[in-house]
Amino acid sequence: MAARKRAGPKPSAPRTKRYDMALIQRGARLRRSPFFDKTWEAGCKAYTVYNHTFLPSYYDDPVKEYWHLLKHVALWDVAVERNVEISGPDGFAFMQLITPRDMTKCRVGQGKYVLITDEDGGILNDPVLLRLEENRFWIALADSDILLWAKGVARHAGMKVTIREPDASPLQVQGPKSKGLMADLFGDKVTSLPYYFFTKTDLGGIPLLVTRTGWTGEVGYELYLLDGSLGGQLWDAVVKAGKRYNLRPTGPSDIRRIEAGILNYGADMTIENNPYEVGLGWTVDLDKPGDFIGKAALARIKDEGPKWKLVGLEIEGKPIEFNMTKWTVTARGRPVGRVTSAIHSPRLKANIGYAMLPVVHADMGTELIVEHPDGPRTATIVKKPFLDPGKEIPKA
Amino acid sequence: MAARKRAGPKPSAPRTKRYDMALIQRGARLRRSPFFDKTWEAGCKAYTVYNHTFLPSYYDDPVKEYWHLLKHVALWDVAVERNVEISGPDGFAFMQLITPRDMTKCRVGQGKYVLITDEDGGILNDPVLLRLEENRFWIALADSDILLWAKGVARHAGMKVTIREPDASPLQVQGPKSKGLMADLFGDKVTSLPYYFFTKTDLGGIPLLVTRTGWTGEVGYELYLLDGSLGGQLWDAVVKAGKRYNLRPTGPSDIRRIEAGILNYGADMTIENNPYEVGLGWTVDLDKPGDFIGKAALARIKDEGPKWKLVGLEIEGKPIEFNMTKWTVTARGRPVGRVTSAIHSPRLKANIGYAMLPVVHADMGTELIVEHPDGPRTATIVKKPFLDPGKEIPKA
Repeated sequence: MAARKRAGPKPSAPRTKRYDMALIQRGARLRRSPFFDKTWEAGCKAYTVYNHTFLPSYYDDPVKEYWHLLKHVALWDVAVERNVEISGPDGFAFMQLITPRDMTKCRVGQGKYVLITDEDGGILNDPVLLRLEENRFWIALADSDILLWAKGVARHAGMKVTIREPDASPLQVQGPKSKGLMADLFGDKVTSLPYYFFTKTDLGGIPLLVTRTGWTGEVGYELYLLDGSLGGQLWDAVVKAGKRYNLRPTGPSDIRRIEAGILNYGADMTIENNPYEVGLGWTVDLDKPGDFIGKAALARIKDEGPKWKLVGLEIEGKPIEFNMTKWTVTARGRPVGRVTSAIHSPRLKANIGYAMLPVVHADMGTELIVEHPDGPRTATIVKKPFLDPGKEIPKA
Repeated sequence: MAARKRAGPKPSAPRTKRYDMALIQRGARLRRSPFFDKTWEAGCKAYTVYNHTFLPSYYDDPVKEYWHLLKHVALWDVAVERNVEISGPDGFAFMQLITPRDMTKCRVGQGKYVLITDEDGGILNDPVLLRLEENRFWIALADSDILLWAKGVARHAGMKVTIREPDASPLQVQGPKSKGLMADLFGDKVTSLPYYFFTKTDLGGIPLLVTRTGWTGEVGYELYLLDGSLGGQLWDAVVKAGKRYNLRPTGPSDIRRIEAGILNYGADMTIENNPYEVGLGWTVDLDKPGDFIGKAALARIKDEGPKWKLVGLEIEGKPIEFNMTKWTVTARGRPVGRVTSAIHSPRLKANIGYAMLPVVHADMGTELIVEHPDGPRTATIVKKPFLDPGKEIPKA
């Protein structure tokens, strides 16, 4: 593939100059996070775009950043996880309407990993939801305009609900030493949080929500900055307190999230996929009270069994830096599916990833061919998650 | 501003290597247009992201590309203008519901520049609409997920309507010699098209819609590829036929569109703005039959008069390559508004752009200060469009 041959130096290669923003923007169409200037000063080497906003991809070789995450603390600017607030007298009823997960099982102060589905059961987003009050929720989004979806649904729904983007910008603090850092910054209030719970707090007057969530499978937290004008101050305070824990700014780790079986919206699932085929049927409560968007379709799919399945894949050959496109998967010479994510895991010393395949080709242990840009490679369907089996799939 | 000081070489500087896609993506989350491989082979030097899809920004110095557009033919991959199709028995009624423009005035075979507004009159998008049949419309989108908005609105609207993303990928062919090229490729059928009309045709079997539209103020067309698997073939056919017209692939020209008074969604208008304050009140038909989303709010805003206004601005000092952020505008030392777009026009030999200002500061001829990253600059409110006065504002 042309793209591969022309690829520039690896991110680990020395760079004589910093990233040139003119490579990704002309004009002020895209948004900057409250932490943008700090990520720039910290030497971010590449940005991508997520929810119309710049997302730092890496500051150093992503493999080095991965090891750092496993041993120390990594700080990610994920303000791109823009939030949508659902509130008003019918806030609870509306939230129940737009997600297949049962909100009666989510207490105030608790979060949930949820899907947002359309009438066909197609996945529109997979946010982390926080229940702030009986009738007030925030959902921290993957890359799609759920603000527009929710406002559109509300238009004729006959419910009293207010939908807006609040001033809330998450910063992920992930890695084994993050608990110590949280103890220093916030004390027991935060370190005693069970998985997927959150608390309101502040750091020297900077208003925050702190959640026990993350996109890693490591111990980790997210600091939701509640005043976008204080991004620099929050960043500096966390970096300063993090020194003794060897904190460093990094990009989100694709290696670590794939090891943990975490999916990336847009790559591993899109509007074309339903929860059952991507292994997220556990977030669908068909028996919950009332209707929700996609219920009839999802009940039918569950009953008939999904026709496609997102499987774990181990791919032979040289280490894969990452897949730039969804590579074709063939069985007996015929294209049958696509690799959605692929990467080399330094700990597993193997190329791991996911493929979307028809169920008839999705049995554990099946051997298939992946059309890698450099030539075909043998791949085997394996169990996922690749590490941390048995854990509820964590998701930022 | 840090971003400015650290900016790399100008796009016109020689580059020893091609653009490295790892600077904007890791993994296959973002989409590629049917023309992507051709833009890469043609030496595209930078991509941005638009509707979750890569958009080629430039292949050469954007000033050179601007002069080329003015004198010859420029070919832009704008497949990122993803389309939404509205169809079904209530397709017309639904289209009337979601835009303030009156669809009774749009014939089958005709297009319109329309806004999509929310219940507050906030602008969600500014697509080019095509009426394909009585009850079937396509809207070619700016950067927001109107697919989700429209599906959401339809959910409880009680109308028989189908909403989907069709296989349609626009390619802009713009510049004075584009008419000759269209004559060679398609004959009278296309060259006789009035402004904003379109026709169905094909090029050696490649199915197309050709529209007399564009984002330039120059003579121009858009070729909507109707089979995404044939992107390379279409590109090659147009490039080959375009040789005698000195066709070259370029990025969209911000210089040219600002000269023409054309707005860029995300920069010059967002959900925070209503049509009246950005000078697009002419697309709002408050007297059209039936209700539309935002009608009550827009009637009130029109009645009271908008509180903000997007004005034309001429900014003193050295040539501005472009604004990376929305620079602050001050009046008597106090911040009052923002520059939304700014660029140097080689023909006008001036820095031109737009600013969003309270109406009390928006009088023609008013002098203001723009907080340019390199220091304050005097700016004067001037008429827009800067060139082509009197034309209906064209928009891709």
